[in-house]
Parts: sequence; structure tokens; C-alpha cells
Amino acid sequence: MRLRNKPWAVKLVQEHPESVLDRPDPEKQIDWSQRFADCSRPLEIEVGSGKGHFITTLAEQNPDKNFVALELQVTAAGMILRTKLEKKLDNLQILCADAADITAFFAANSADTLYLNFSDPWPKTKHEKRRLTYKTFLEKYKKILKPGGQIEFKTDNSGLFSYSVASMNNYGMHFDFVSVDLHHENEEIVAKNIETEYEHKFAAKGNPIYALHADFGVE
Amino acid sequence: MRLRNKPWAVKLVQEHPESVLDRPDPEKQIDWSQRFADCSRPLEIEVGSGKGHFITTLAEQNPDKNFVALELQVTAAGMILRTKLEKKLDNLQILCADAADITAFFAANSADTLYLNFSDPWPKTKHEKRRLTYKTFLEKYKKILKPGGQIEFKTDNSGLFSYSVASMNNYGMHFDFVSVDLHHENEEIVAKNIETEYEHKFAAKGNPIYALHADFGVE
Repeated sequence: MRLRNKPWAVKLVQEHPESVLDRPDPEKQIDWSQRFADCSRPLEIEVGSGKGHFITTLAEQNPDKNFVALELQVTAAGMILRTKLEKKLDNLQILCADAADITAFFAANSADTLYLNFSDPWPKTKHEKRRLTYKTFLEKYKKILKPGGQIEFKTDNSGLFSYSVASMNNYGMHFDFVSVDLHHENEEIVAKNIETEYEHKFAAKGNPIYALHADFGVE
Repeated sequence: MRLRNKPWAVKLVQEHPESVLDRPDPEKQIDWSQRFADCSRPLEIEVGSGKGHFITTLAEQNPDKNFVALELQVTAAGMILRTKLEKKLDNLQILCADAADITAFFAANSADTLYLNFSDPWPKTKHEKRRLTYKTFLEKYKKILKPGGQIEFKTDNSGLFSYSVASMNNYGMHFDFVSVDLHHENEEIVAKNIETEYEHKFAAKGNPIYALHADFGVE
């Protein structure tokens, strides 16, 4: 979802280069050891963080892991940044960039988990290549994930879910968890789930939330 | 679903051994060439046919293929038989037997398509092995299917669908078609869909119908 431009958000981003990488040059590698206190900790990345409720909650709950919120829109990055500063989340960095360039920003075998939450469904067949679960994206995720590293995908869009199940299966990925009704799973799973802003709104309308956790194996 | 016993159905089955194999001995092979006019035609099997609306419609629409309705309950077998006789479906045989014995009744590499429609979900974890998409069943289907032969699975049960997607993926199956909302797919797919009795009832309530078509590859 495109957000209305918020001048305060853009200004905040400009004032905090230590927390936000604002459209970095994909030709230059990012030295994450300069941006996290301890780079030996597990690294988790959300691809398309929106306003950031999911990733900031996760970062707050897991101070022993490092997190990157990858988000293209500067206004959204500013909103994530505001929460990061309020909650003093030193283990969260914000990367304002295009997901298509993800392999430029992260080293091979460096990430433990990738989160894809409520990505743009791009419903028209001619836009298939833009879906974040299209095979060229899966290829990129495979590169940056450690062996056995996992993709955790959630959506309320039935078309995108059906597509993604087939796409990940056909890419040879192994499914660890599948739910076509995440909010009505067993109590333990429901309790662990961190809702995104979208998810909260859609689920409240009674729409099902679909989830898929998958990995590329440990070869 | 267990049907109330209908004496007429049991009697009809007994009167038509040429159309129904009533609980045959799994130790003895079935000679299908004695039961179909032309055994070189494609063979399609529905595992758990219930009252038989799906398989009788399919047999009627495809006179150039052979069909077997596998159904454990004699009353249900009698109801399928009644339709078969009314519609003069010479290309449909009824096999009243346990799906767990399927490899005893069909030769290896003999079937083109298997249909699993609205199977019992067996929701309790302790009953996982009874689900028709549990790995021991998949192993049996793989044996009787020709290379590249397909399983077409439909259900309204979210738990069974989630389970089956993971089970078939973990077994190494290739997904050809996935839908978490079959009745709201594109017009061409909706028009081709043959509803079962259950499906008609559940979909009318607005419940989503889930579908998965998968194969074991052509190795």
C-alpha cells in the first residue's frame, strides 16, 4: 500500500543515518558489523515492512537477534524509525531499498530467516515477475539465507497464497508449516503469531490469513 | 460421512456383480480387462466416492475413459450403482473396498488420475495415519499411478488441506494446480469443476473449497 507522504518521516530518516540506510548504492557492499553491536547473532530480515509493527515487535521480543526492515517507501521507513527510537531497538536497522536488489545488500549465507508479510499480490498474470514469491526472488532469498534458513510467508490474498504455494513447491522448497486459517490454528501457534497492521484489519473482518514456512534444505 | 443403511442398495449391489466388486479378496488380483470393454483407455479412480455424483458425472462426460469408484460403504456403492444403471455408464465400475488395500486391486503404473474428494479429515493428531494424504497412502498412489499421473484433491476442510499440502510437498510431489478458493477462480476453471454432493452443500454456505493437483514426476 502506498502511504501518503509525511514530511516529518522524511526529515527523521535524514537525521538518523546510523539507523536507516536510505536508498544505498547497490554497487557498494554494506558493512553490517558497523551497524549492529554483535554481528554473530542471528539475522532476520522482513521484506516489505510497511509501517513496521511486525518487525519492531519481533525485535523487541528478541534482543538476542539482529533485524533488518527492508522497505522501499521513505515515509514508511520513517514510521518504522520512529518506533525504533521510541523503543530503543538497537538490534533493528532499516534499509530503504528495492527488494529486487536484496542480494546486493546481504552477503551469501548470512540470514537465518526472511519474513514476507502481506506482500503486494500483483494479481495480473503479466505482473507475475513482480510477486515476491516469483522464482527469481526465491533464487535471491536462497543465496542470502544460511543452509536450512527459513522463509516465513503470510498473506490474506487467496490468489497470492495459491500462487506462492505452487511457486515454492516447484522451486524444490521444503514446507515446514502450512495454514490456510492461521488465526484459528491451535492456541500455541495463535499465541506466537505477531500481527502486522494489515493482518489485524483483515482478520477483524473475518477473512482467513494464510501462512507458509519453507526452507531450501541444508545442501 | 456414514450413510443410513438402505436395504434396497444392498440388494441392488448383490444383483449386479458385473458392475460392483463387493469387498473382493485383497489376495486375489482383479482382471479389469473382463470388466471394461477396452482396457487400453485411460483409467481414473476416485478414492471415496460417497453417493457418486462426481464420478458418475465424470464418466458420463468422458465415454473414452474408464472409471472406478472406490467406496467402502455398501449403501453408498448401491447409490452409485443406481446412477450407473440409469445413465448406462458402461465405462464405470464400482469397487466396494478399503482404500488402504488399493495396491492390491490395481496393477503398478495402471492409473492415469486419482481423485480424492472431501475425504474424512481425521482431525486428531493420533489419527493422522488414517488421512488419505498421509505418506503411506501417497506411497500406494505412486505405485498404481503411471509416470506423470496426477492426484486431484479437493476439500472444504482447512486443517486437512493445510496438512495435505505439507504432506505432498514433503513427499517430493510436484504441484500442478493450487487453489484456496476454487469456486472463485477464473471462469474456465470454475466451469470445468464437477461438484460433489458435499461440495455443493458447503460451497452454498459460502465456505471456501480448497484444491490441489499434484504428480510424482516422470522418473
